[in-house]
Amino acid sequence: MPYNIIRLNTPKTQPSDLPVLVIYTGGTLGMVYDTKEGQLVPFEFKQVLDLVPEVRRLTFGISFLAFDEPIDSANMTPELWQELAKIISAHYDAFDSFVILHGTDTMAYTASALSFMLNGLNKAVILTGAQLPIGIARSDARENFITALEIATAKDKNKRPIISEVCIYFNSVLLRGNRAKKKESSDFNAFHSENYPILAKAGVSIEYNLPYIRPYAKDSKLELLDNLGNQVAFLKIFPGISREVVRSVLSMEGLKGVVLETFGAGNVPTSEWFLAEIGAAIDRKLLIFNVSQCDGGRVMQGLYQSSLFLRDLGVVSGSDCTAEAAITKMMFVLGQTDDFGKQAELLKKPLCGEMSI
Amino acid sequence: MPYNIIRLNTPKTQPSDLPVLVIYTGGTLGMVYDTKEGQLVPFEFKQVLDLVPEVRRLTFGISFLAFDEPIDSANMTPELWQELAKIISAHYDAFDSFVILHGTDTMAYTASALSFMLNGLNKAVILTGAQLPIGIARSDARENFITALEIATAKDKNKRPIISEVCIYFNSVLLRGNRAKKKESSDFNAFHSENYPILAKAGVSIEYNLPYIRPYAKDSKLELLDNLGNQVAFLKIFPGISREVVRSVLSMEGLKGVVLETFGAGNVPTSEWFLAEIGAAIDRKLLIFNVSQCDGGRVMQGLYQSSLFLRDLGVVSGSDCTAEAAITKMMFVLGQTDDFGKQAELLKKPLCGEMSI
Amino acid sequence: MPYNIIRLNTPKTQPSDLPVLVIYTGGTLGMVYDTKEGQLVPFEFKQVLDLVPEVRRLTFGISFLAFDEPIDSANMTPELWQELAKIISAHYDAFDSFVILHGTDTMAYTASALSFMLNGLNKAVILTGAQLPIGIARSDARENFITALEIATAKDKNKRPIISEVCIYFNSVLLRGNRAKKKESSDFNAFHSENYPILAKAGVSIEYNLPYIRPYAKDSKLELLDNLGNQVAFLKIFPGISREVVRSVLSMEGLKGVVLETFGAGNVPTSEWFLAEIGAAIDRKLLIFNVSQCDGGRVMQGLYQSSLFLRDLGVVSGSDCTAEAAITKMMFVLGQTDDFGKQAELLKKPLCGEMSI
Amino acid sequence: MPYNIIRLNTPKTQPSDLPVLVIYTGGTLGMVYDTKEGQLVPFEFKQVLDLVPEVRRLTFGISFLAFDEPIDSANMTPELWQELAKIISAHYDAFDSFVILHGTDTMAYTASALSFMLNGLNKAVILTGAQLPIGIARSDARENFITALEIATAKDKNKRPIISEVCIYFNSVLLRGNRAKKKESSDFNAFHSENYPILAKAGVSIEYNLPYIRPYAKDSKLELLDNLGNQVAFLKIFPGISREVVRSVLSMEGLKGVVLETFGAGNVPTSEWFLAEIGAAIDRKLLIFNVSQCDGGRVMQGLYQSSLFLRDLGVVSGSDCTAEAAITKMMFVLGQTDDFGKQAELLKKPLCGEMSI
Repeated sequence: MPYNIIRLNTPKTQPSDLPVLVIYTGGTLGMVYDTKEGQLVPFEFKQVLDLVPEVRRLTFGISFLAFDEPIDSANMTPELWQELAKIISAHYDAFDSFVILHGTDTMAYTASALSFMLNGLNKAVILTGAQLPIGIARSDARENFITALEIATAKDKNKRPIISEVCIYFNSVLLRGNRAKKKESSDFNAFHSENYPILAKAGVSIEYNLPYIRPYAKDSKLELLDNLGNQVAFLKIFPGISREVVRSVLSMEGLKGVVLETFGAGNVPTSEWFLAEIGAAIDRKLLIFNVSQCDGGRVMQGLYQSSLFLRDLGVVSGSDCTAEAAITKMMFVLGQTDDFGKQAELLKKPLCGEMSI
Repeated sequence: MPYNIIRLNTPKTQPSDLPVLVIYTGGTLGMVYDTKEGQLVPFEFKQVLDLVPEVRRLTFGISFLAFDEPIDSANMTPELWQELAKIISAHYDAFDSFVILHGTDTMAYTASALSFMLNGLNKAVILTGAQLPIGIARSDARENFITALEIATAKDKNKRPIISEVCIYFNSVLLRGNRAKKKESSDFNAFHSENYPILAKAGVSIEYNLPYIRPYAKDSKLELLDNLGNQVAFLKIFPGISREVVRSVLSMEGLKGVVLETFGAGNVPTSEWFLAEIGAAIDRKLLIFNVSQCDGGRVMQGLYQSSLFLRDLGVVSGSDCTAEAAITKMMFVLGQTDDFGKQAELLKKPLCGEMSI
Repeated sequence: MPYNIIRLNTPKTQPSDLPVLVIYTGGTLGMVYDTKEGQLVPFEFKQVLDLVPEVRRLTFGISFLAFDEPIDSANMTPELWQELAKIISAHYDAFDSFVILHGTDTMAYTASALSFMLNGLNKAVILTGAQLPIGIARSDARENFITALEIATAKDKNKRPIISEVCIYFNSVLLRGNRAKKKESSDFNAFHSENYPILAKAGVSIEYNLPYIRPYAKDSKLELLDNLGNQVAFLKIFPGISREVVRSVLSMEGLKGVVLETFGAGNVPTSEWFLAEIGAAIDRKLLIFNVSQCDGGRVMQGLYQSSLFLRDLGVVSGSDCTAEAAITKMMFVLGQTDDFGKQAELLKKPLCGEMSI
Repeated sequence: MPYNIIRLNTPKTQPSDLPVLVIYTGGTLGMVYDTKEGQLVPFEFKQVLDLVPEVRRLTFGISFLAFDEPIDSANMTPELWQELAKIISAHYDAFDSFVILHGTDTMAYTASALSFMLNGLNKAVILTGAQLPIGIARSDARENFITALEIATAKDKNKRPIISEVCIYFNSVLLRGNRAKKKESSDFNAFHSENYPILAKAGVSIEYNLPYIRPYAKDSKLELLDNLGNQVAFLKIFPGISREVVRSVLSMEGLKGVVLETFGAGNVPTSEWFLAEIGAAIDRKLLIFNVSQCDGGRVMQGLYQSSLFLRDLGVVSGSDCTAEAAITKMMFVLGQTDDFGKQAELLKKPLCGEMSI
């Protein structure tokens, strides 16, 4: 891989320490004003000391790797997820932890995807970003960046990492990556996790919610599972949705999986034609994954008549999975096996804390 | 219309008072156990005194109208919205206010649709429901029902209705109907409105947030605009969405409008093919309405490069509109005119408080 | 004790089951309109079926005991806490759980006091109440009552009580009693616990936060420790507090303990006279317990200069204890021993989950 | 006054512009590590460019004035409030707005006191601070400082200040100063205002809640009312409070006013002795101001029996006033007149938005 890794030591750093690799993908956080052009451009790592001079006050050095061409996260792709996963895998032994600087728009999708692809992870991978660029006066970028570094490198009294999973840190809270959702497009408090408790809260000190953090697995080995399918789509139900719309989505050429966004606890219209279309699609070996349009609560196929039908037809319940985790899990599952039955099995069970049983 | 209206007087009621018409459409709230069959069935109004004996303690009488066949709200349809709007219109002069008992799953869609269809409304139309049936011991049904009645009939010191718009009341909060969203599938606290303040809070007393409630328009006349188009669909963007998926949705036979669910402040991938598909669809006179996947904040086409393109292509900004209000507004707009330009104009401007300018 | 216990069976009840004893002390919850007098009076148990007919739908019977003279909780006293503790102790073997109906004003004080007095408790004692009387149309009383009964009697799959500590249930949330605080005087959402997670949330189902609930201790025996001292007071610090005020409170005749309400993380003015008064009081064997005026966070004597002095003078840190738990713990400690050193020791350590170490 | 004012211009500043005077009183925000001594010491203004280099990116210059001896806010005094009020008064014509850097512990007390003392204010006075020092890596100090500067200098389209009252800005929210309370001793989200809406929220942009902000009063003249009495105390009620404690507080030598912290909506024990002590104290011309121990809601003397007595005895209702605003209002009122009746009158009415009628 043609990336350079630049190292910044602080006075207290030992040359042999490699506590954290910062991977800059792009996004608002890293934007600065180009004074010549008068517009926002991605920052270069050599500017970091000017922009976040607090970095000098850390007790550990940081290493830095940037995408050659930083991207707006609206343009994030599965190919870039594969790149990211490979970068982490390639430097997994050398570094103790990873911080990914990422645009907020698709950060929850990326965190979800990485959580599936980095099987057996036992080091911290913390994604963070900002609502305002690091290069302007008022910004949440510095705090998010500095705190993500502190959390990524935090150790318990046995010198083990406190966090050994993929997380998002944003505006004082640490969330499990595949449970997070961007809920606010302009508040600093941009991410939340409605169905899983926050993992840590940063204030005067950083308080960890230990019962809900994935325990450190000492002997776990990282396995890179970076095969992804992208023949997937969302189908969001609404009152009055027509048979043409449902059929047309479910019978798209080449489509292999659909995340069905349903009402409440997983409910859909029970009209005969609707269920017929769903049944026919499953017969054609289309994977259908049922998640709720509600942020909170879970799909319980069978609680009401209108979801019982789905279960009987072979729709897989998404339980309390977010839409972001659902679509990336679908991509992941399609990449692991071509067997329809095995795909459904994988989809059904929690793989890395993304949904409750 | 073949509905019977039954009246329940309380001791203090005058025969001439018709303060409120309760319309029962179905949903969890009204379910009771059929002791013979041992399963939940819709309640009949004559049971209301057993189930909610508190009704007797109200200072006003209530009138009651039930759908012949109560429906699970997952089966709500635009045709039933038209029925509801007609019922309100037909009894508009006779009653001072309206309370609609409705399942929670699609209540926000129905409230949004009614807000557009009941043009010029200056009486309260309050939708409410429950997470647990009125017929079991532990339930939120009674409180939601009683409080909705109190809010619907509340008058200011000039004897004018405090609320004269379509609202949802649920679990102590009153929300503007076309700003509400079901956010929790199992908490009592099921609805929220991320982009507009709550209109009232019920506690020891009911406190109204007057600056944000639509002011009473004394001389306003109700106009029933019940024509709706349903050739609409959602298209939710995600990283890795394929050209086939985008094209296939945008070019569905007969489709006239798409609600595009975008990232953050209205952003989409800026790949050439994506924008080409959007542009081609608009050229074919497909209405495209841009709303965010985030609950909070608003679409600001032009803030970032990835949304600027959309504006230039003719995508209409949904500002801070909910997905529920967006899809019903699209249906409403398609029902008002066949002219593509006029449709886009209607879509763009706030019609009844559903979005900020 | 001259109380009558009345039993109400439901169809499914076995005569030998005694799942729950409801103790009615008074408070808003139990108020009904006396139609003759037109004013609110305490309800009698025989009215409960009219007022909360849902009780009939419970799957278990309830037993009922009322204070001869129901009291407004503003008049709650340590003597009544002793009565309550004795009632629970006297019926501890006969009943599986206890629900106390109590006014909201001092519910957090009572719950705290009981948590200390009922040493070794391994059955549920749930306090609840309401913001509006059970006897009026709009009220939170029914739901709070019914749900408290369900939580008190909830068992895990091994038939053990899920809750075996003193709790407050109010408006969908279950809180540890000695962590709760009345935060709202008119919202239904009246209680909160800023420094300890909620123990359960009631929605479509009741979800328990198991890692934070005190585990059931099978062989624990109840020990009634009902001796309380009341020679205690609060001293709340503010900028400009005069030496006269401080001295006058700390040197009250007969006073044995003071809960010092300090700033932030336990800070006080560091003026020489202030510390001299504190020091002199401790020399006179006045117990001083430092809690914060902030709801959240904890006293950390030594973090700042202004609290370091206190530690050195012998002030006991209240950590993250509420003011309510602090004053009742002080009363409890004074009742257990006359030895000043032992009192300070007891005060310092968590006795039943009321504070973090 | 022997303070120096230092000016820092930014490239875009005109020499004649004096948009904001920053007054540094001390507190955590301004602490930096003295590398020689290895301990936290107050910063000097010349360091600000190193510590908050973002200041350079502001579009306006700032002027700076520091207390000769910065103080920990636990040591804040009424004398220092008088100094602060005089500084603002002395520079009122020269500057367009004021930002006060202050420790968090007593910031709500100071903001309340200033709101009363700066009568007729029509410029912004924004207090801010931090939970962590500006001189360490992870800190909320920079964001709070920069955003307070932006809010203080914000103008509407008519070039009038958006804010023209005393406020606290902290962790993305702007609160009316005399409505704010420190609720968290260690979260960044330290302040809240339970009884009054937030005035602004900072995110990608700063959104003002205009209906709740005090409107700009063009012709208002500042009047410095800096006379304060400090013969005041809190008396916090609890179950079991003894007559000795009540009497001893109410009859302290020289005491002129007591803030009575009561239960719920302003309730107290109705025992004869309690009311007798209150009555006797009022007869001796002790001002008694009733505020609730609850953060939210308001004192409604007369709603329940236990508060009706207080009203009849002459206790003044504090409505929804915070304890912090109540004690400083009491000090202010005692400083304005020696007439007991006039004092009670002043106490009763809202003076600058500190309580609702």
